[in-house]
Amino acid sequence: MNFVDIILDKRYGRALSDEQIRFFVKGVTDKTIPDYQISALLMAIVLNGMDAREMTTLTMEMAHSGQMNDLSYVDGVAVDKHSTGGVGDKITPLVLPLCATFDVKSVKLSGRGLGFTGGTVDKFESIKGFNVQVSQEDFPRYIKETGMVISGQTPDLAPADKILYALRDVTGTVDSIPLIASSIMSKKIAGGAEAIVLDVTCGSGAFMKDREHAEQLARAMISIGELAGRKTVAVITDMDQPLGRTCGNVLEMQEVHEVLIGRGSEDVIEVACELTAQMVKLAGKDMGLSHDELIAECRRRLTDGTALAKYYDLIISQGGTILESGAPLYVEKPFEEMQVSAFDSGYISRIEADVIGHASVLLGAGRLTKTDEIDPGAGICFYRKVGDRVSRGDVLCSLWRGEEHRIDDEKLFDIMEMVSDAITISEEKPKPHKAIIDVIE
Amino acid sequence: MNFVDIILDKRYGRALSDEQIRFFVKGVTDKTIPDYQISALLMAIVLNGMDAREMTTLTMEMAHSGQMNDLSYVDGVAVDKHSTGGVGDKITPLVLPLCATFDVKSVKLSGRGLGFTGGTVDKFESIKGFNVQVSQEDFPRYIKETGMVISGQTPDLAPADKILYALRDVTGTVDSIPLIASSIMSKKIAGGAEAIVLDVTCGSGAFMKDREHAEQLARAMISIGELAGRKTVAVITDMDQPLGRTCGNVLEMQEVHEVLIGRGSEDVIEVACELTAQMVKLAGKDMGLSHDELIAECRRRLTDGTALAKYYDLIISQGGTILESGAPLYVEKPFEEMQVSAFDSGYISRIEADVIGHASVLLGAGRLTKTDEIDPGAGICFYRKVGDRVSRGDVLCSLWRGEEHRIDDEKLFDIMEMVSDAITISEEKPKPHKAIIDVIE
Repeated sequence: MNFVDIILDKRYGRALSDEQIRFFVKGVTDKTIPDYQISALLMAIVLNGMDAREMTTLTMEMAHSGQMNDLSYVDGVAVDKHSTGGVGDKITPLVLPLCATFDVKSVKLSGRGLGFTGGTVDKFESIKGFNVQVSQEDFPRYIKETGMVISGQTPDLAPADKILYALRDVTGTVDSIPLIASSIMSKKIAGGAEAIVLDVTCGSGAFMKDREHAEQLARAMISIGELAGRKTVAVITDMDQPLGRTCGNVLEMQEVHEVLIGRGSEDVIEVACELTAQMVKLAGKDMGLSHDELIAECRRRLTDGTALAKYYDLIISQGGTILESGAPLYVEKPFEEMQVSAFDSGYISRIEADVIGHASVLLGAGRLTKTDEIDPGAGICFYRKVGDRVSRGDVLCSLWRGEEHRIDDEKLFDIMEMVSDAITISEEKPKPHKAIIDVIE
Repeated sequence: MNFVDIILDKRYGRALSDEQIRFFVKGVTDKTIPDYQISALLMAIVLNGMDAREMTTLTMEMAHSGQMNDLSYVDGVAVDKHSTGGVGDKITPLVLPLCATFDVKSVKLSGRGLGFTGGTVDKFESIKGFNVQVSQEDFPRYIKETGMVISGQTPDLAPADKILYALRDVTGTVDSIPLIASSIMSKKIAGGAEAIVLDVTCGSGAFMKDREHAEQLARAMISIGELAGRKTVAVITDMDQPLGRTCGNVLEMQEVHEVLIGRGSEDVIEVACELTAQMVKLAGKDMGLSHDELIAECRRRLTDGTALAKYYDLIISQGGTILESGAPLYVEKPFEEMQVSAFDSGYISRIEADVIGHASVLLGAGRLTKTDEIDPGAGICFYRKVGDRVSRGDVLCSLWRGEEHRIDDEKLFDIMEMVSDAITISEEKPKPHKAIIDVIE
């Protein structure tokens, strides 16, 4: 098979055969196809698309390019959850213990943050002693003990996807629904998921900027899931403003604890409950409840201490410490350094999530490059959100740093200006944001 | 400037700025942009196109990436001619001496053949002693002596185009009007042309398979020429069947001689006269004749010995020998090895030029890879063309090899079958092919 013919087929808008896609992924994995040919094909895929059958073959071939996890030790259906990323997204640390209360077991492989989206592994690591490098052989023991385990991704999961992603990153071929969908789904399937709940974020702080594209991505992943025999449901959630009240690592884990003791913000609770309800249904543990009843049950367990008990189990089992106050022990204490006040009276009509995410990275909460060290205490707290009425001078949000922070005060001042500019105050009351935009099955 | 942003601009269908194109061509030339990024941009250009301003900037930057020839020693306007290639295309050896009869001087830089299109340099080299490696410093002497010089391309002409072409060849990005047009025009402009006549071939044996695409390419090159201040005219010519009666190197040069002694085939004469007339007009040497009068004058000079005398001058000045018979001395004698006969009676309705071109390469007349050696005597002669009435058993064409041919008889038999299959005989008389399809100014 000649790879130039494969490029030409896609360049002329033809669907690639399964055999051609297999040849492609094999050549990527064993490095027999040169990068310049791969990137030409990637750009042709970006511009001419792929149909559901092609995406599914690409997904399955990438999944099989490395180790395929066997989750047969999880009794029942192994359900996995994936978020397409956002600012202030602390849903996984809530969904895991909440699912566990329904006897839905989770093997969660997560990544570190890069760019303006945070990483779940970084967040859990802000709990002192919490070990995210769990060996795969030990997963069954954790599942047996607490029904949950969270770990950084093993390096040999879907290696073809890793190679392709690195190339896409430097060739302007990241933004492509078939490539994003197959990348996500290949990792989920290699991870052993039999059913998948997708949190497809949508808005300025998400990869998909509008509902139309978010829906396209959701439908692409659902069709891959269907053709690959994995039940897949997508929840489209709002990421036009940061989720919840915080972004940053310790700050977000503190917020998780707040939710679990009944003091969470409504948007976080809604998203966590919807995703959990979908996972519980796919796992067949919904006890015959209607969707609304199941949501109500999730909401109850999330806030009345039921999920909190499971959360403690998770933390302790992976080496973390729970203080006498009931809060986990964090690796550092965040300090509120500077406040951002309303420059005008009116309604908050916009908080640009992407700018906030970027500001948070600059504060030290995330990484610009893979080798950056993060400041676990750094981040931003929001006291007001979109739709709130404010008066001139009211504190809207504040910037935080850890004890051993990495940035000086001058930089802090620049970031404050950046955050302030990201918030719009209008005379008119804006239409309220709905945390859950749509559920697509 | 970040190259990924340039890729993204084109990926989203935006026009690149002159500065971005300059950055691109510079990075290609000095090899600071990695191949995988270049090929991603090339594919984005293939699929999203370029406007006339972008193509012109790309052309001029590629032209200036190496040496710019100075043809000021050619008095008057330096007119160059370019063909987009075809099967049996022996027009340059006719146009050069014919132009010289009008005092239109030609510095002709030509390439070698690769794939099914032949190269003018290979054809001239089939004349014994003819030196195609003329040093640039000697060009003025030849122009003074005969008004003509033909030479293989110097290696430092438009080096950026050379690098890009090599990459396009292996990344499925050859077939793109902006890339083809800027590649051709950059070499013409670097070669020093002030005015350009383009022979845009069209049909199965050409790169442009139909009139629509040939016209698009012609218009693209004309708009580049206009914006670059080079008067450009395109003649769209038929390449749906091989041009003239031969393909192969010695065979074609023998046909050139036949034309010059008044025994040429009509299609070759028409194309040579139209291109020459356009060149004469651009050079301002048309003596006030109307187009039809100029064509008639070209036809007269091409066939009455006027052009033949100039052809002798050219051959002798570059080291070739003219025999007492008046024919040049060739490097080898072609032998007719096998004849292809009509399998049916009727009209020849189709001779697939691309298949004939490929068969000719397999016979040894051309190269499949750059390092292949050619057999100058190899090729195909046509005794009948599209539109001719034939009876079953009539000889349609024949396969030829040189004295030291490279292929055995079994292979010859396969090629005969291939050639036979490329000829269609129908009951109905086909519409006659016009050699000149259109002239676009």
